[in-house]
Amino acid sequence: MALTRREFLMRTGSVGGYGAAFLLMQSLGLLPLKSSAASVVAGTADTGKGVSVVVLGGGIAGLVAAYELRKLGYSCSVLEARERPGGRNWSVRSGTGIALNGYGTQTCRFDEGNYQNVGPARLPSIHGTILGYCRELGVELEVEVNSSRSSFLQNDRVAGGKAFVQRQVINDTRGHVAELLAKCTAQGALDQTLAPGDRERILDFLRLYGPLDSAGAYTGSGRAGYAEVPGAGDQAGVLSQPVDLHTLLDAKFWAGILFEETFDMQATMFQPKGGMDRIPYAFASKLGAVVQYNSPVKEIRKTAKGVRVSYVQGGAEKTVEADYCFCALPLTILRTTPNDFSPPYRKVIGECTYAGAYKVAWESRRFWEQDFNLYGGLSFLAQGCTPVWYPSAKLFSPRGVVVAGYSNEVGTPFEGLTLEQKFAESRASIERLHPARGRELEKPVYVGWSNVPHNLGSWLQSYSAGRGRGEGPDPGYETLIQPDGPVYFIGDHCSHIVAWQEGAAVSAHRAIRQLNDRVRAA
Amino acid sequence: MALTRREFLMRTGSVGGYGAAFLLMQSLGLLPLKSSAASVVAGTADTGKGVSVVVLGGGIAGLVAAYELRKLGYSCSVLEARERPGGRNWSVRSGTGIALNGYGTQTCRFDEGNYQNVGPARLPSIHGTILGYCRELGVELEVEVNSSRSSFLQNDRVAGGKAFVQRQVINDTRGHVAELLAKCTAQGALDQTLAPGDRERILDFLRLYGPLDSAGAYTGSGRAGYAEVPGAGDQAGVLSQPVDLHTLLDAKFWAGILFEETFDMQATMFQPKGGMDRIPYAFASKLGAVVQYNSPVKEIRKTAKGVRVSYVQGGAEKTVEADYCFCALPLTILRTTPNDFSPPYRKVIGECTYAGAYKVAWESRRFWEQDFNLYGGLSFLAQGCTPVWYPSAKLFSPRGVVVAGYSNEVGTPFEGLTLEQKFAESRASIERLHPARGRELEKPVYVGWSNVPHNLGSWLQSYSAGRGRGEGPDPGYETLIQPDGPVYFIGDHCSHIVAWQEGAAVSAHRAIRQLNDRVRAA
Repeated sequence: MALTRREFLMRTGSVGGYGAAFLLMQSLGLLPLKSSAASVVAGTADTGKGVSVVVLGGGIAGLVAAYELRKLGYSCSVLEARERPGGRNWSVRSGTGIALNGYGTQTCRFDEGNYQNVGPARLPSIHGTILGYCRELGVELEVEVNSSRSSFLQNDRVAGGKAFVQRQVINDTRGHVAELLAKCTAQGALDQTLAPGDRERILDFLRLYGPLDSAGAYTGSGRAGYAEVPGAGDQAGVLSQPVDLHTLLDAKFWAGILFEETFDMQATMFQPKGGMDRIPYAFASKLGAVVQYNSPVKEIRKTAKGVRVSYVQGGAEKTVEADYCFCALPLTILRTTPNDFSPPYRKVIGECTYAGAYKVAWESRRFWEQDFNLYGGLSFLAQGCTPVWYPSAKLFSPRGVVVAGYSNEVGTPFEGLTLEQKFAESRASIERLHPARGRELEKPVYVGWSNVPHNLGSWLQSYSAGRGRGEGPDPGYETLIQPDGPVYFIGDHCSHIVAWQEGAAVSAHRAIRQLNDRVRAA
Repeated sequence: MALTRREFLMRTGSVGGYGAAFLLMQSLGLLPLKSSAASVVAGTADTGKGVSVVVLGGGIAGLVAAYELRKLGYSCSVLEARERPGGRNWSVRSGTGIALNGYGTQTCRFDEGNYQNVGPARLPSIHGTILGYCRELGVELEVEVNSSRSSFLQNDRVAGGKAFVQRQVINDTRGHVAELLAKCTAQGALDQTLAPGDRERILDFLRLYGPLDSAGAYTGSGRAGYAEVPGAGDQAGVLSQPVDLHTLLDAKFWAGILFEETFDMQATMFQPKGGMDRIPYAFASKLGAVVQYNSPVKEIRKTAKGVRVSYVQGGAEKTVEADYCFCALPLTILRTTPNDFSPPYRKVIGECTYAGAYKVAWESRRFWEQDFNLYGGLSFLAQGCTPVWYPSAKLFSPRGVVVAGYSNEVGTPFEGLTLEQKFAESRASIERLHPARGRELEKPVYVGWSNVPHNLGSWLQSYSAGRGRGEGPDPGYETLIQPDGPVYFIGDHCSHIVAWQEGAAVSAHRAIRQLNDRVRAA
């Protein structure tokens, strides 16, 4: 249940380009945030006049594509298998039916107003395209608290399973590192490495960075918290004893403490008020009858003119013909959809693998706020369901929805558990962090994306057999990002921002630019 | 204009007990958050029956005192010099007159709905007492974004004054530290220091912490950001070149990058929706006619029965007699208020010094959001007005209020500038971080607390001549926290949480407990 290596690398942003995101502004070039995403697609309202595009899949990529194509004059329709827009952007709330292959149908029974985003649940402020759409479509945003210094880190094998507070682990870790480096520096171990004069400057810096005492030792700090808090009168406060380095090395809390530094996990982050699905519903409201719901695709064929797509609607098989196709279906679904794709495309569609992330969410009294002073943020455990993710919605209200477990379950023991066993594991994680509160959890929902019809996976894990994402140019990926005749593949899997709505949106923009160039050239 | 040493120490929390705060929950003892602050004061509704208390000053300490004393049956009145409650908790908005000694009166002209908290502007989630009052009084809170990885650090003397992005400085700094320590460790410099087996474990840890490449070098990381951002198709992204250690040592951005780790600056933080003054107005609404406004205190006398306080109201001198006095006036004001205090009290009142923090705030287009992707958080400069503090209120709206300069001006060149010169300095700070945006700033307001009538200072700096705060037990402080006969001193200066509303509230609670014990014993 611990993070896989891939997940860890993805989350810490140490794989260049992947699991990373769209940076609109940084020290070397201050690019303005595009307030309307439309401007990224060159062209005018008649560029697409007389040209038809059928868009397969009404998730973010498909919705963005249809929305922008129509601005350029293209004639568009979107085929969506489900009765709702959004794809993986799915918020469950009171009355939502959750049908999973192998798990029957759960019905969410949260209190009115409570919800859980079981797909994407964060909008980094660096994801300017999707934020631009929120602005353009009037989707109201609020801060998503992605890091709280009061959250926990826990490992059954260390200190009897005690939950450590993040402020202490982060600050004690830095304190020990500063002390050790100061010791080496003072002993001259870096004299060959450092520029002249930098030895004293580094020692000065480490005294603040630790902070270290006048003897160069890290002996705790207000940053790490207090054993007795400062107060009024003679209540001066007593610092916490630092957690020793040996214990920290045992506990290996590193992924948890570095999580907030991941490029696309850094403050400031947002979420739509009322649920992430406010975004697809805002697109859907603009697109109206362009999106045909309950219309699963059955066949994709190339024709002399372009494409012919068969789908089922109201029990009847129907077909649509178009000049071009923007295909946003998951590759897991395309794999079993009869098609005329060229061999290289069929190869990547056949060979690729998908992660199967799951979430378990519970409703309860906000004990994390009321008893533990925790408002938003995530706690990380070394075993069992992890992380525990506290809600940023409706802070201070009586009851809320907390996630206990959000990981890839494929290939882990969790995958094989029954629903009841999964809930028991999830409840146990809460109990490890918040003793005696596990029993307060109610109304659980489990969504494992491997088992969600029309998805069969959460996000792309590898394109080509035997290769991980991010190991240099990948022939499968290189194939997907070029059109197969009249068919353009879109979706976050056609971007370097996999598993984010931003990736889906920019992949649609890129395909439109490619199509526009082609239409103009013709 | 740089941080003084005292401010730096206070902000980094490295002075035990001071500039720190109230921790309700931490790893060693999970104390429940008190949902009603009332429970911290023992007693029943008739404990104070027949006992009168006059409260001097209607800031947070005075308001909390009166609110809680009345719950316990005491007869209470509050004398407040101004026409409003709150003291330093002051939000200026359209129409607010800002009369400052030596600066005439400014009138705030912000757009309707915009405001600036010119006194306290943050509520750390660890400040459970004041948060408890927000809950009890129905003050609606929203997240105050106290740290954004997209904010800036700037030093005129480094790299031609270029503004560095926080994500890069924080993550490159840690990267260099990890590389240097890994080098020392690999060379055996720590073999005498480390426990057996820890050498390899530290190297493993540093590879993630940096992160370091397989050769042990820090060569950049997605955490620090991108020179070319990852996107769709073949846009794989190019990491930023790390800022070299030598430049970082020149720039000394340490106070800025450690700011967010200060105990009482750590996420999650809050602010009342609509202005911090929602808190005192909520108390005032409960207290009604108990608070007498426009009633500056002129004299405080001990009597055989208790105290007699003279004040002016409607042009007439009045007096009030009471059994006890809770005195929340700033010591700067008490200094010139005729009184009967005992010599040790007169000594600390005479000798203490106050900081004179100021804020300059401007209204403008939200260029920090629209052009720089910055939502909340603070940027720090090595010179001029600093920090620049971006609003958390009404994110994404067209116009907002930004602070450019929030420091102690006493003893700095800024203190002697005219209003126009101060605004020019402040505008220059914005220009350093956000070139060409300085000209967009409008409607400036300056509030320097040394010049605010009825305050003459922002917060207590030292109690006794020649001593700083936090240098061990201070005779001045020890005096103040005990009653002088019938007079109890309250306010944040009677706590170890100086300059925070939490300190004011807990000082009032403590004085009530002391008074209760005395009344019961009598």
